[in-house]
Amino acid sequence: MHTTDDTIIALSTPPGMGAIAVIRLSGPEAFSLTEGLFIPPKKGVKVSAAEGYTIHFGKLQQDNELIDEVLVSVFRKPNSYTGEDVVEISCHGSEYIQQRIIEAFLEKGARLADAGEFTMRAFLNGKFDLAQAEAVADLIASQSKASHDLALEQMRGGYSQKIGQLREQLLNFTSLIELELDFSEEDVEFADRTELFKLLRTLKSEMKSLIDSFQVGNVLKKGIPVAIIGRPNVGKSTLLNAILNEERAIVSEIPGTTRDLIEDTIIIEGVSFRFIDTAGLREGGDKIEEIGIERTREKIKQAKIILYICDISECTLDSVDDVLSEFREYIHDKSKRFILIGNKIDKLVETPHKFRDLVELETIFVSAKRKQGIKQITDSLLKSVKTNTVQDQVIVSNIRHLNALKNALKSITEVESGLQQNIPTDLLSIDIRQALYHLGSITGAISTDEILGNIFSRFCIGK
Amino acid sequence: MHTTDDTIIALSTPPGMGAIAVIRLSGPEAFSLTEGLFIPPKKGVKVSAAEGYTIHFGKLQQDNELIDEVLVSVFRKPNSYTGEDVVEISCHGSEYIQQRIIEAFLEKGARLADAGEFTMRAFLNGKFDLAQAEAVADLIASQSKASHDLALEQMRGGYSQKIGQLREQLLNFTSLIELELDFSEEDVEFADRTELFKLLRTLKSEMKSLIDSFQVGNVLKKGIPVAIIGRPNVGKSTLLNAILNEERAIVSEIPGTTRDLIEDTIIIEGVSFRFIDTAGLREGGDKIEEIGIERTREKIKQAKIILYICDISECTLDSVDDVLSEFREYIHDKSKRFILIGNKIDKLVETPHKFRDLVELETIFVSAKRKQGIKQITDSLLKSVKTNTVQDQVIVSNIRHLNALKNALKSITEVESGLQQNIPTDLLSIDIRQALYHLGSITGAISTDEILGNIFSRFCIGK
Repeated sequence: MHTTDDTIIALSTPPGMGAIAVIRLSGPEAFSLTEGLFIPPKKGVKVSAAEGYTIHFGKLQQDNELIDEVLVSVFRKPNSYTGEDVVEISCHGSEYIQQRIIEAFLEKGARLADAGEFTMRAFLNGKFDLAQAEAVADLIASQSKASHDLALEQMRGGYSQKIGQLREQLLNFTSLIELELDFSEEDVEFADRTELFKLLRTLKSEMKSLIDSFQVGNVLKKGIPVAIIGRPNVGKSTLLNAILNEERAIVSEIPGTTRDLIEDTIIIEGVSFRFIDTAGLREGGDKIEEIGIERTREKIKQAKIILYICDISECTLDSVDDVLSEFREYIHDKSKRFILIGNKIDKLVETPHKFRDLVELETIFVSAKRKQGIKQITDSLLKSVKTNTVQDQVIVSNIRHLNALKNALKSITEVESGLQQNIPTDLLSIDIRQALYHLGSITGAISTDEILGNIFSRFCIGK
Repeated sequence: MHTTDDTIIALSTPPGMGAIAVIRLSGPEAFSLTEGLFIPPKKGVKVSAAEGYTIHFGKLQQDNELIDEVLVSVFRKPNSYTGEDVVEISCHGSEYIQQRIIEAFLEKGARLADAGEFTMRAFLNGKFDLAQAEAVADLIASQSKASHDLALEQMRGGYSQKIGQLREQLLNFTSLIELELDFSEEDVEFADRTELFKLLRTLKSEMKSLIDSFQVGNVLKKGIPVAIIGRPNVGKSTLLNAILNEERAIVSEIPGTTRDLIEDTIIIEGVSFRFIDTAGLREGGDKIEEIGIERTREKIKQAKIILYICDISECTLDSVDDVLSEFREYIHDKSKRFILIGNKIDKLVETPHKFRDLVELETIFVSAKRKQGIKQITDSLLKSVKTNTVQDQVIVSNIRHLNALKNALKSITEVESGLQQNIPTDLLSIDIRQALYHLGSITGAISTDEILGNIFSRFCIGK
């Protein structure tokens, strides 16, 4: 087990004022430092002698000055989040008290925890592997059901298991190859070449499908990018507001939780959709002309779904044809969806039947102003994702993992072509080890301080 | 004991994303509701059978869908914050998870807690009195050592004790008077009138001193109001920034805690100073002329400390004399301090000795631009408060208590004059009861739903 010689402290609850706040300590001195500041009502009660998973009420005071009345939760190693001795102090949630308590412990000799340091210690103590540790940060950041489920599945080890299986197959392959290496002078072939090729093909195909899953994983995690485009005054901002309001009303509001973060992201049935560069669209109406066609094309490139808005009361078949030719490449791009939104139906006397028949695009007629047809749009957005994908398959959502998998695949491809060219086994084995290294770096079977530093610095403090 | 038939739930940690969040449940169904969603790793482990002050790890799931892995803390009535059965759920701090967990419990039949409802239940269950309950809200809101100490002392009952003593003395008085009432037909005087007058004088004097303490209590709680005034371009905003920066640098920054709230309040050695209407001063420089002398006087009226800034490089003795005559009433007001700040000493060749000798005001020479002399100003601000006042005496800091004390004093004064005029004892007793009522309303010995509603609605949710 990894041992650390210092005790770290941090605020673990969100910053700011609340009813209560929780400050977490972890390390060899967690109990003794707490005893130096914590006075339970009954003398002789000692934190260091307390059973794990018990809570103790008392006063927290420094130099005989009362800071607060607190609850102290005791977790004894190895049965704690970090695997070390852990104390959680639940205090009144004033910022002054939070700060005073942390300062009192720092003065006693605790050290302010780095971002993610508690989770890093948990990883170093074998509480979970690296992919699971990373999932903790994703879980905390997740705002939609899809990203939450993804992170939870990864945190609980489903993802690591899959990577472990790949690595095991590769290790089998290696042992066969390396056995051959030992006897290389005798020019025997222990490993059946056909079997080897088959194994490599399976490995490659599984890696590829994991790499491909990043497309899904990334949008589930970050939200599906949607571009709303169209000529000036067709009602783009009214439409966006109508969509946002419709969905916000569905999300039940819980007092005390802020919904500011969703901004231009809406969550429909657990999947989030991210509107690209909508801020610009909203302030002062339309900017298409100012920012130029180049900016618009840039937005469209990033998008998975393109909503092209036109004013149906002014739009002619000719102008629709213009759209068709202007955006032909995106309309025919299988990786995108292009939806034509005919806005301002409130200005028409009858529904535009004819128009609908002639246009080969997916078309939705709405009145953004009267909030008609909005539900059809959100339903249509949802069609872009199979929401059950998360439960059914292992999905890569982390760019570090994606790169590791790409590197591993590259090495495996080298092995394959080396095998085809009958290059010496000892050279093959270099590439195999590379592949093993990359796969191992995902779960942390192989890790360096640099990798760890990079990963955990992106955590929030106190986790 | 007060009984409630519903179980309330709320997020108790600050809103937003953090490493962890704590959700609190209180009421008769706290355990059974938790059992409906919480799955401990060992089957048969039951929250309802768990000992108080113990923590339990497990999965929280709704309709077989995992929401999070959580820690559940169990507190059994009456040994909990509210005096009821309480469960605290410590979950990963994503807003999505916080919301999902609360929604799952609401669906099971819990009710979202009103602001301060946990503390109100604690009060109704006799966990503490009303003044102590109010102190909890003050404690959470306190940002300086002085306001923190004040709230903590009140929360721990020191203040209630004092009010209790007053009430007891008054009750003694009442029993003497009412005994007389019983025998009124016999025209005897059981109560020695001299003794009665003496008791009334003591009561009045103690009430008066409590009422007077509000002056101190209020500034300790809200910060001492400081006005920075002066003619245009003398460097008021530069000076304010210099003061703010100097002190902000002293406050040690703990990552993850926000200091945005202090804005134009600085905390020097635990005491906060609040700059009045400085926002107006800062944006676009000086507005004295625009807002007119009336606004300035208004600001000065609210202030306890007035910093009058002049540009020493342009300021003549005559202009100082103008100040002396213009602000004479405030300079001689014993309840205020008027400090003359001679700014821009960097523009002078020698220190203005002569100037200092002639001016009868407290004068500090500074260069706001070069940050010279700022420490002298903050030291001088500190002189306005005895920081040890909080420990030494009982201080009123709550305007509801102030009003109750004023009303009680009024009734007592009525009693006194009634006694002097020899009015019938039964009439006297009406005023005595009024006084008792008002004193009782402070600690909640007497309370109505309306009073409680008013008090607790000002709490934050989750407390």
